[in-house]
Amino acid sequence: MNKLNVVGQSVERPDAYDKVTGGKGYPMNVRLPGMLHGKMLRSPYAHARIVSIDATRAEQLPGVKAVLLPKDVPQVKFTPVYFVPVQAPSMILDFDVMNGEIVRYVGQPVAAVAATSAEIAEAALELIDVEYEELPAVFDPEEAMQPDAPQLHADAPNNIAKNPVFEFGNLDQGFADADFVFEGVYQTQRVHTCYMEPRVCIVDMDRRDNVTIHVTTQHIFGTREKLAFALGIPESKVKVVKPPYIGGGFGGKLELTAMEPVAALLSKKSGRPVRIEHTRHEDFITTTRNPIKVFLKTGVKKDGTFTARYAKSILDCGAHATHGSEVIMVHGAFGIFFNYHAPHSKWEGFTVYTNNMIGGGYRGYGAPQGSFAVESQIDEICTKLGLDPIEMRLKNARKKGEPHPFNPAFTIASYGLEDCLRQGAEKIGWAAARKAPHGEGSKKRGIGLSVHPVWVSGCMGFPDIYEHSGAIVKINRDGTADLATASMDIGSGQITTLCQIAAEELGLPAGAVRMSSQCDTDNVPFDAPTHASRVTYSSGNAIKAASAMAKKRLLEVAAILMEVSPDDLEVANGIVSVKGSPGKSVTVAQVAQRAESPFVQMTAEGPAPTTVEEKGTIVGIASLAPTSNPTPCAAQFVEVEVDTETGEVRVLHAVYAHDIGRTINPRAAEGQVEGGFQQGMGYALMEHIQFDAETGSCLTSDFLDYKMPTAMEMPRKIDSIFIETDEPTGPFGAKSLGECCVITPAPAIANAIFDAIGVRFRDLPITPEKILTGLGKL
Amino acid sequence: MNKLNVVGQSVERPDAYDKVTGGKGYPMNVRLPGMLHGKMLRSPYAHARIVSIDATRAEQLPGVKAVLLPKDVPQVKFTPVYFVPVQAPSMILDFDVMNGEIVRYVGQPVAAVAATSAEIAEAALELIDVEYEELPAVFDPEEAMQPDAPQLHADAPNNIAKNPVFEFGNLDQGFADADFVFEGVYQTQRVHTCYMEPRVCIVDMDRRDNVTIHVTTQHIFGTREKLAFALGIPESKVKVVKPPYIGGGFGGKLELTAMEPVAALLSKKSGRPVRIEHTRHEDFITTTRNPIKVFLKTGVKKDGTFTARYAKSILDCGAHATHGSEVIMVHGAFGIFFNYHAPHSKWEGFTVYTNNMIGGGYRGYGAPQGSFAVESQIDEICTKLGLDPIEMRLKNARKKGEPHPFNPAFTIASYGLEDCLRQGAEKIGWAAARKAPHGEGSKKRGIGLSVHPVWVSGCMGFPDIYEHSGAIVKINRDGTADLATASMDIGSGQITTLCQIAAEELGLPAGAVRMSSQCDTDNVPFDAPTHASRVTYSSGNAIKAASAMAKKRLLEVAAILMEVSPDDLEVANGIVSVKGSPGKSVTVAQVAQRAESPFVQMTAEGPAPTTVEEKGTIVGIASLAPTSNPTPCAAQFVEVEVDTETGEVRVLHAVYAHDIGRTINPRAAEGQVEGGFQQGMGYALMEHIQFDAETGSCLTSDFLDYKMPTAMEMPRKIDSIFIETDEPTGPFGAKSLGECCVITPAPAIANAIFDAIGVRFRDLPITPEKILTGLGKL
Repeated sequence: MNKLNVVGQSVERPDAYDKVTGGKGYPMNVRLPGMLHGKMLRSPYAHARIVSIDATRAEQLPGVKAVLLPKDVPQVKFTPVYFVPVQAPSMILDFDVMNGEIVRYVGQPVAAVAATSAEIAEAALELIDVEYEELPAVFDPEEAMQPDAPQLHADAPNNIAKNPVFEFGNLDQGFADADFVFEGVYQTQRVHTCYMEPRVCIVDMDRRDNVTIHVTTQHIFGTREKLAFALGIPESKVKVVKPPYIGGGFGGKLELTAMEPVAALLSKKSGRPVRIEHTRHEDFITTTRNPIKVFLKTGVKKDGTFTARYAKSILDCGAHATHGSEVIMVHGAFGIFFNYHAPHSKWEGFTVYTNNMIGGGYRGYGAPQGSFAVESQIDEICTKLGLDPIEMRLKNARKKGEPHPFNPAFTIASYGLEDCLRQGAEKIGWAAARKAPHGEGSKKRGIGLSVHPVWVSGCMGFPDIYEHSGAIVKINRDGTADLATASMDIGSGQITTLCQIAAEELGLPAGAVRMSSQCDTDNVPFDAPTHASRVTYSSGNAIKAASAMAKKRLLEVAAILMEVSPDDLEVANGIVSVKGSPGKSVTVAQVAQRAESPFVQMTAEGPAPTTVEEKGTIVGIASLAPTSNPTPCAAQFVEVEVDTETGEVRVLHAVYAHDIGRTINPRAAEGQVEGGFQQGMGYALMEHIQFDAETGSCLTSDFLDYKMPTAMEMPRKIDSIFIETDEPTGPFGAKSLGECCVITPAPAIANAIFDAIGVRFRDLPITPEKILTGLGKL
Repeated sequence: MNKLNVVGQSVERPDAYDKVTGGKGYPMNVRLPGMLHGKMLRSPYAHARIVSIDATRAEQLPGVKAVLLPKDVPQVKFTPVYFVPVQAPSMILDFDVMNGEIVRYVGQPVAAVAATSAEIAEAALELIDVEYEELPAVFDPEEAMQPDAPQLHADAPNNIAKNPVFEFGNLDQGFADADFVFEGVYQTQRVHTCYMEPRVCIVDMDRRDNVTIHVTTQHIFGTREKLAFALGIPESKVKVVKPPYIGGGFGGKLELTAMEPVAALLSKKSGRPVRIEHTRHEDFITTTRNPIKVFLKTGVKKDGTFTARYAKSILDCGAHATHGSEVIMVHGAFGIFFNYHAPHSKWEGFTVYTNNMIGGGYRGYGAPQGSFAVESQIDEICTKLGLDPIEMRLKNARKKGEPHPFNPAFTIASYGLEDCLRQGAEKIGWAAARKAPHGEGSKKRGIGLSVHPVWVSGCMGFPDIYEHSGAIVKINRDGTADLATASMDIGSGQITTLCQIAAEELGLPAGAVRMSSQCDTDNVPFDAPTHASRVTYSSGNAIKAASAMAKKRLLEVAAILMEVSPDDLEVANGIVSVKGSPGKSVTVAQVAQRAESPFVQMTAEGPAPTTVEEKGTIVGIASLAPTSNPTPCAAQFVEVEVDTETGEVRVLHAVYAHDIGRTINPRAAEGQVEGGFQQGMGYALMEHIQFDAETGSCLTSDFLDYKMPTAMEMPRKIDSIFIETDEPTGPFGAKSLGECCVITPAPAIANAIFDAIGVRFRDLPITPEKILTGLGKL
């Protein structure tokens, strides 16, 4: 691949300074004059009819400025998920902001208060009298599918919200062709993305329904569309300010919740801006990764070739489908069905209502639940048949040049899975470790791998999912450039990488392009959410196009200044020069100054007119959809040590190899991988939101109750390997990175544990208790 | 002229609601968390050397967070005027933020404090000990020009900062050719624009020199350039937030003052945002309209034809030239020299330093001072020679098709002065009023007129003055559009008229285009200041171009949707239809929704792919300079009543006729005229900032000391007549309006007073005291 100037460098993150000096730029820290504080009253019942609500006493509490009841909230149903239209036919339109008749989970908002302090608002909630008529509740999705179970939504018989099927070939034939058939049931748990900054919004809504909102969101245009719909006002009435930063998202800030419309309506009612900040507990019960139970059955030839694959997945979406409608699809497609070749395949999915909390988006979006089943079972097959786990996967994997399995309109134009596996194996010393003894004494070592073979670089080609991006680029007179885009940095370095793409295309040095910090839904073009591993590829392509437009203008003005043809010019590192004559040059700053100079410039020799043609700020704009949706792929290797006395599992070494197309910023890419491993390892070994089995109340109230990997638990060594396959449709060859690295750790760790102690775990998280039980010690 | 849909309608001002409900959007109301309050210590001496400054006691006052002394401020000289480059060769580079050696006027800042309250900051100023060595001062510009006068600046002998000359033909020959020669001396006074919102800024500057500033400014890019220079940092480090509104400007917020860099440096030093708000007194001593004394001599033939025109103008620029460098040029060119044809003409101007306060920009920018002289003297000539004041002016005026007198590269392509005079005369009943008796008793009626024959629609063609504009336009899915531009609305309705221009070009209904409220110097292209009557013409042309780009894209997407050629489509009132087949149509909203829809849309019939070509927000961008600088022209008629007992002058009726090219919004245009008349009438009759003759201290401390016309004094009847001459280079035929209407009232009123009582006043304001003195009663 050709060497580039800015792309490929680990340039410093421009947001680093703000972030280490106190958090300027986070919605959390926005304060508006006269701002009130809002709090929501939540149902203590998992399933109940609301008989009456009386807020008289709350309204009389000094400091209370507005009380909001269901009757004040438009009773409309829609999907709050940001990446699809508000009434997308493919989604389940069952969400409402504040239902005045029924509650379906513990924590559903039933009223809200705005007061001069959060404490007064909290106290006022106690003074709202709600009379409930309790109804029978169901918390297990398989129970919920029984005919005699309580019914949650009238239009979902047996509580089945969605029942998609993927099918290919003839399954019976496939299993008949098999030498061996493997079956297993794999269960994943409910976890939270654990972003650091809680959901918070500050909303100002005037009596003419003009709304301005500062909010922790992964998609400002999604917030605009859904909030406008929830409020019953035209979209353009809502201005969503793009937060310069949010304290993490990971898919957990990808939908509207009650918070935003409730704050807006409290603001309109009180005539003052209203701030609502979730407690950590409120965040825990707002969105989580849906638990999925996977029944997986695979037919294989002796040599490891798949003959048939069947799976059934039961997803607990809780009280409302929201993301559950789409998570099940991604789970089925990219967690199971399209991962590997098989002549005969079938998958059926069930998104099932229960009286649990709502599930939602989380990095990987259904794939971790599927991959845990698929990659565990492949390991079981290899063990049983004595096959090499690397060769087994390569035998059944996709190949470069094939049509994309999910969308045959696209071709797999780049695909580096074999390199990922070979280089990863080399790095961790796979061959030697597989043969090595598992250690002496109570601590047993093991090594394991998993791959993630098919993924996305955005949503191009998916039904009903937005996928276009926009950007505005402006060159300043000091030779820097400003980049404005709705594309959100959710903490993973998008600002850095997108500015690098712009700098490379504009021919500016690293650091000379800055992200505009004051964008909103009024002043920048639409961009789809920061999700689905899409930003570098999709937003990157739009930013490259906007930069190309600005560069064209830059060279036109430089050509007037230098009295040459624009075609003879090139620009790099802030210098415009004549091709082949690097000595004949001007700086980008000089060109920008000339373009913005007065029409007649006074000089020592008198007035010197310039031309109208060269006048004008050098700008570029683009708004476009990508032309493909290339798949990255990845291999994860881990070495673990299992303490057979305590059940504790330590990950000693992790190696992750990823076909990234082209690395924009190696250090930022490593950060993605390491953060992904942290979340994947937490999923594998420790994270789990707990509920009371009787009442459905969430028992996890803050991070003290929720164990996730810290520096203490993280492996001392994580190696990231980036395979550069130069994706032809990507910006400078790049494709996606963000999610595969969170999908692969759990099965790799489970496989390594099996390698260490010979016990197979099919139920996450693999806690010390389960290890000891598996070892027969409990 | 062709009828348009939105242009020409008195659509409602979109800012009206915010403005009548409490002022959201004004810099005055910005509050940032942790914000400190700054105050400046000002010199009590008009001319002194600073011997020492000791701030020890101030620093120790509890609540004081930072003290700024001259040693903390870069000692650089530049022009603070926004519309020219910071080191423009045509300007005088004598301004500094905080001079550590010398003070040259009472009120010059010498130190500053930031504290937790404005009261503590004020108290701390008292604790700063400054030792001065007083120097002799001079307050009269003609005295200042004497060789023995105190010298203010080393490089300005005789305190003459600038001495421009315009000359044409042979003056001696011209006077020799005359039948009559008239001479007079005309003196104007120092007045303030009296915007309602004082100058205020809120600045956040971090330790890496990133600056964000909210400020009352007429030019965000000017603030950026000058503030960056004053601070010694690259321009792109400074983000100037475009205030949605400012409470008036009128030319009075067209330069950097000490406030902005002082607040920035206090912020950097304290680590907190700093707010500085001027008291009304501080505003009064920061900028004012420069007083000018004009010696005017005119040679005429018996029939009123000019044979020679000579003038000398002495402008008191105070301690620093700032605007005085350019005001003298505009004054000479558009107040005197180019107003009328004359075969032999000469004008010489003197911008003179004194120990008075700095002068500055004010609507009309030097022309009111010149026009008062010229239009008064024409009246004197008509009286003496028995000529008709209308015919006399038309005889010597410019004509359509002539080269533009100031810049012969441009042609006068539209010119409606004769219509202005004829229609204005008709409206006020000129012929009858001239013959009518002047009233009985002590109250005498009179009628007068003035014209302003040559003006600008911006600065295209002026040396060193920025003149290009930019805009970004985006069409929303609900059929509305957002307009983002750096062009400021300074209270005169620019938001309304610019949105109308965009709506007309886009084919949207009035009100469907909204001005983006969150622009800044990072996210929109450069625009020259809101000054020089330029916004409708120059910014309007850029907005029309950006809208045209968006419209082109709109029709392309509509063409895909409707399966026709884009060339066959037209758009109006939010409907795209096939030319000639109005029934075959889609709405703009439908087209925008299609453009922003997912690539594959689920429908009742299954997935329906759309094309990549139609994907993307419909956007337009433009940044360009206009191609001409057309002159508007205007005639002002007034009827006055002079109370010969009290000296009071009442204006009974004002008629103003203006060649506007095309009226964008009649009601907004009337507002401009009526506001202009208010300021012009105040200039004529009452406004005057007063100074102590001994010390140079300003005695006018607030509006109680400064009489301007209120509803009590305003005429009960003001008629505005707009002559539409369809300027070919203007947006929909428009040219400028904002300033002629403030230039014409003073001479028209002086002429009407002469008509009423036969006394000629050549010294503004014409107070009751002067009337009575003129009548020999005092």
